[in-house]
Amino acid sequence: MQELIVEIPERSYPIIVVDGLLANAQALRARLRACIQGNQVAIVTNDVVGPLYLEQLMAALDGLQVDVMHMRDGEAAKNLATYEQVMDFLLAARHNRSTCLIALGGGVVGDLCGFVAATFQRGVDFIQIPTTLLAQVDSSVGGKTAVNHPQGKNMIGAFYQPVAVFADPATLSTLPPREYAAGLAEVVKYGVIEDPDLFVFLENHCDALLAKDGEVLSQVIVRCCAIKAAVVSADERESGRRAILNFGHTFGHAIEKLCGYGHWLHGEAVAIGMVMAARLSQQTAGLTAESVDRLINLLSKLGLPTELDSRSLEIITVDAMIDAMGLDKKVLDGRLRFVVASEFGNVAVRDDIDEATVRVVVDQCY
Amino acid sequence: MQELIVEIPERSYPIIVVDGLLANAQALRARLRACIQGNQVAIVTNDVVGPLYLEQLMAALDGLQVDVMHMRDGEAAKNLATYEQVMDFLLAARHNRSTCLIALGGGVVGDLCGFVAATFQRGVDFIQIPTTLLAQVDSSVGGKTAVNHPQGKNMIGAFYQPVAVFADPATLSTLPPREYAAGLAEVVKYGVIEDPDLFVFLENHCDALLAKDGEVLSQVIVRCCAIKAAVVSADERESGRRAILNFGHTFGHAIEKLCGYGHWLHGEAVAIGMVMAARLSQQTAGLTAESVDRLINLLSKLGLPTELDSRSLEIITVDAMIDAMGLDKKVLDGRLRFVVASEFGNVAVRDDIDEATVRVVVDQCY
Repeated sequence: MQELIVEIPERSYPIIVVDGLLANAQALRARLRACIQGNQVAIVTNDVVGPLYLEQLMAALDGLQVDVMHMRDGEAAKNLATYEQVMDFLLAARHNRSTCLIALGGGVVGDLCGFVAATFQRGVDFIQIPTTLLAQVDSSVGGKTAVNHPQGKNMIGAFYQPVAVFADPATLSTLPPREYAAGLAEVVKYGVIEDPDLFVFLENHCDALLAKDGEVLSQVIVRCCAIKAAVVSADERESGRRAILNFGHTFGHAIEKLCGYGHWLHGEAVAIGMVMAARLSQQTAGLTAESVDRLINLLSKLGLPTELDSRSLEIITVDAMIDAMGLDKKVLDGRLRFVVASEFGNVAVRDDIDEATVRVVVDQCY
Repeated sequence: MQELIVEIPERSYPIIVVDGLLANAQALRARLRACIQGNQVAIVTNDVVGPLYLEQLMAALDGLQVDVMHMRDGEAAKNLATYEQVMDFLLAARHNRSTCLIALGGGVVGDLCGFVAATFQRGVDFIQIPTTLLAQVDSSVGGKTAVNHPQGKNMIGAFYQPVAVFADPATLSTLPPREYAAGLAEVVKYGVIEDPDLFVFLENHCDALLAKDGEVLSQVIVRCCAIKAAVVSADERESGRRAILNFGHTFGHAIEKLCGYGHWLHGEAVAIGMVMAARLSQQTAGLTAESVDRLINLLSKLGLPTELDSRSLEIITVDAMIDAMGLDKKVLDGRLRFVVASEFGNVAVRDDIDEATVRVVVDQCY
């Protein structure tokens, strides 16, 4: 059992990637016990993930007071009402300041449980056990916790770090194919923004990735976490460098919004958005046509969309895209900001790109 | 107009004490503008304080987008429902990440508004304008923000620092006498735990304090904030040194709880609790009988109770006090912890005091 660790420098918590961890009771027990200080644990999970992994997790926690809260699955449950239910649950079970929360699930569970941990009795320990690829390579790194508000996603939350993240690639075996592919879109993004070697590694290991090979996935997850951790450490508040993590996201968010949340998964919209961002990079930053093609090929091989489908085309006009991007919350001082690449691993945030160029690029994905 | 500033070392925000600040439009405007970065401001206040000071505050903010939220007055409004109302209000008025919240009121407004600021879009700037003595010398320093839960006070919250605190002693002129005296109890506490010179100063300026002399109050507020800031900086998470701020509070909380919240104000219960703590100090740490008498005299002169009243005596038995203290959340590993003084300015946290001694001391306040 290989163990790969990413140490997050400033907050000094480890992201521990171990293929098969949840199925190995002894290893799981040893690693969890090393980071649980008190004798109380509260697990937050959902109706889909709980039945799959809860038993194994509980077995590793015997001897402690363990209480379990099941949320409904899906983004709709990530709200203040669920947050309050978790608070009620913790207090009814008499959890105190030395309790430790464990988030067992994807990004929704992690974001909500993290926000509870940040604010229960002004902050208690929490451990993340992300069970989706997106959570393993993205949402479990960087300390963002939140719930949604009817007026917008992630409007209520805090920056708060876990004491540890345990990522087990084996949990991805139960992930639906579309969700898995959507996670791979963010993996590809890390290659584009920071690591050409990772990009090549992905090109060379498409089959292993599609087969959910634990060895390959472990390496990929560790590399992605290390990149995100480095970017986030350099800039915790998204004012500067962190913005490069949004490569493809300005377009992607607009696509998600216009098609209605639910039509595209976030990662799918980001995949199409990255193709648009790559074409914009070609127009404005000298990215080669060959690089754009490599990106499109890699995304396609990994089962991701690279252009709008017929349903989207019915809804999305170029004008609508421009409008929707103007309302994106990453807009600063009324200027659209785009992340563009001059080559893989070399990106910059630009706010001087004119609308006409953006229109041309969007039109090419039709 | 004298301006006194306490710089909080680690977080580097100032507590600015200016007698008459709110009535001086020009000075208020200059000081507020110096710490508001964006063009949006949201004021959170309540139905009692708003009518007194809101107009002056609004005048100083002309030219900015200013929205005002009125809470109900009192501790009962410090809950998640009000928290959610403020979030709804901010989003409905389209406040963004660069907004600045201003808490205008006592500890309830400050705690709730601070918690909103800590968690609105993962944290926005906020300014405290405390209008009660308790808030000026205690709750506005140290970064504790919170709301209550039916299961307990301050169960949901965060550590979060304001960008600045503006304390105007002139606002105390409208504070009801009992609330004012209750704030003085915490002032006396600072003298006992850290500053014998402050204690003497208070003894020598009782008349000025009772007359709410702005000059004397300014000096006292600055000194108290400096003491609390120093204690809190040394220990942000209450594990160690911060516990000395609880001098008299273990007894005080038990008294509050047993008599039902509302019978005693917090500061009144703390005053009685400090007399008990002083007697405990005499028994266990060598505090002189003269010091105990000086404390009782000072509290009395300032209009504070120093023993249980007839109503309390009907309810509180010594056994009930011992029980109630056992449930206090400051208990660690089942052992009662008490802050005791060997002399004014020299206190320690002890967990080795036997129940029999505590019983004797409680009995002396009957």
